[in-house]
Amino acid sequence: MRAIQVQEPGKLSIVEIEKPKISSPYDVLVQVQCVGICGSDVHIYHGSNPFTVYPRVIGHEVSGVVAELGEGVESLQVGDRVSLEPIEFCGTCYACRKGQQNVCESLQVFGVHKDGGMSEFVKAHEQKWHKVNKSISAEAAALIEPLTIGAQATFRGGIQPGDTVFIMGAGPTGIACLLMAKEAGAYVMISDFNTVRLEYATSIGADAVFQPDKEDIEEAIYKETKGELANVVIDAVGTAGTFEQAVRLASVAGTVVTLGFNETPSQIPSLLLTKKELKVVGSRLQTNQFQGVVKKVNKGMISPDELISHRFHYEKVAEAFKKLEEHPEEVRKIVLTF
Amino acid sequence: MRAIQVQEPGKLSIVEIEKPKISSPYDVLVQVQCVGICGSDVHIYHGSNPFTVYPRVIGHEVSGVVAELGEGVESLQVGDRVSLEPIEFCGTCYACRKGQQNVCESLQVFGVHKDGGMSEFVKAHEQKWHKVNKSISAEAAALIEPLTIGAQATFRGGIQPGDTVFIMGAGPTGIACLLMAKEAGAYVMISDFNTVRLEYATSIGADAVFQPDKEDIEEAIYKETKGELANVVIDAVGTAGTFEQAVRLASVAGTVVTLGFNETPSQIPSLLLTKKELKVVGSRLQTNQFQGVVKKVNKGMISPDELISHRFHYEKVAEAFKKLEEHPEEVRKIVLTF
Repeated sequence: MRAIQVQEPGKLSIVEIEKPKISSPYDVLVQVQCVGICGSDVHIYHGSNPFTVYPRVIGHEVSGVVAELGEGVESLQVGDRVSLEPIEFCGTCYACRKGQQNVCESLQVFGVHKDGGMSEFVKAHEQKWHKVNKSISAEAAALIEPLTIGAQATFRGGIQPGDTVFIMGAGPTGIACLLMAKEAGAYVMISDFNTVRLEYATSIGADAVFQPDKEDIEEAIYKETKGELANVVIDAVGTAGTFEQAVRLASVAGTVVTLGFNETPSQIPSLLLTKKELKVVGSRLQTNQFQGVVKKVNKGMISPDELISHRFHYEKVAEAFKKLEEHPEEVRKIVLTF
Repeated sequence: MRAIQVQEPGKLSIVEIEKPKISSPYDVLVQVQCVGICGSDVHIYHGSNPFTVYPRVIGHEVSGVVAELGEGVESLQVGDRVSLEPIEFCGTCYACRKGQQNVCESLQVFGVHKDGGMSEFVKAHEQKWHKVNKSISAEAAALIEPLTIGAQATFRGGIQPGDTVFIMGAGPTGIACLLMAKEAGAYVMISDFNTVRLEYATSIGADAVFQPDKEDIEEAIYKETKGELANVVIDAVGTAGTFEQAVRLASVAGTVVTLGFNETPSQIPSLLLTKKELKVVGSRLQTNQFQGVVKKVNKGMISPDELISHRFHYEKVAEAFKKLEEHPEEVRKIVLTF
């Protein structure tokens, strides 16, 4: 079968590899239909993901149709449309026992630590495949995974109906957070340098949008929240400065969620955390969010389609990467079709 | 009646003030028996508490005996021994609705925003007085408040049985955290520069003690936790450096609690929070912790007496302050008797 492989940093090609075979009773083999491209795929391509061993078949936003089942599988049938939950964990370490399997000490992410979904077929344990209604398109089903990233951020932020939420960054992650925070009943403000992204955010429900290069964000949030500041701030930009600003912009008893992977230290005085009794949390990948998101997608409460801006046939992956890198302002999500 | 009043920063004396009178149906007048001295009393004395308006009767760690009741009071009787919950809040702002009345936008702390407990009598609403068994000494009852500070820190840290906990600082707050974390079933490590404090910590149950000037703390915690690091780190020191170290020393999926009020920024990279999916929280005063602590004290599960190192008659308050300021290493808690 054919697959998109990064042989070494900077070298990406379509290769012929062996089609996976059912080898355990709980294996499910899926014929891939759509795969979304994530920023982390680009990082692997550039050699900037420390967890990757090359060569690596990339891709972890995957949908497809069940092609073959191990004899023990009861929850799925051949022909079912499914979405991949692309993490494997030990279940026994401290993080797993605490319900944070996403930071398991033996974490394996499809397309990062092990071969991923940009191939004609993918095999994974029954529990990693989530069935979606056939009325949901294959490309929508592939984008359930990025929605779970937004779901994780809203879960970590403890967003409640009526909360004021400020999301920094209206890229794919910011938009996923916006969709989930709106669905949770919050009043959602979002910022970005890019007007097109902000117009899009408004069109799918953002209550207020701000441009940090055109206005004083701290003043704008102060005004918009009548001086209370934001109950939950989600930093989906991840610079040293946005994290500092997020802590300043959180209300008393508020929560700050960072999705940043920045090694540059942010300047955070403990005074701010204690005086406002803040909660500041990291949010990485997702844990236990698929069930909830799939249910909401099946019911039509959220449309993963909202994330899609471009579609490419998988053979044009190089062109897709180029688009993403050269015009990030135009791209929310690119979906590759198989 | 007589009271200990800070007239202005640097000027503390015993003054004659009017005895409070019952003026609402839920008022309870208490004859004060013991008052603990807190670091914040010293800050008010030195003029370094921004919330204080002078002159101010200080003291918020208060026990006494009910002397007189408003006509609507049903939960207490004259002669009951009680401990004061020294905060008043609006109940309607965002923080209050979220259960964090301790950071209410209209917060009033006895002895800080309004006159406190270092006086012969104190009047407060029925709900602010927690009844303790008569078998509990008056000085123990006064120290329920500092224990609730430890209870709040363990609550904010979400400490579970079996967790490894590292407490930075074995002063009064660190010791209160130690008592509460042990009671919660954790394995508790604690650090301090002072040998006497560490010996005391060991005598009341610390599982491991470390001296930051004598050993590499990060290596010591790594070894003691077999490489996992501490599931919960409580920073009861509050320098810019201890907060940074707390974030480094938290395990994957761990929690950091800061009680620091430091304006100097700590250098915190978002990478650490996201990679380990940490929770970093401030812990200020306490909220809803009195009931639980009083229950445990009444059952003998915790002894607030453990905190006491010195006793003074209230007329010798100046001497007591001198002791605390000149020999902090010898002092855990000083109790003034009335």
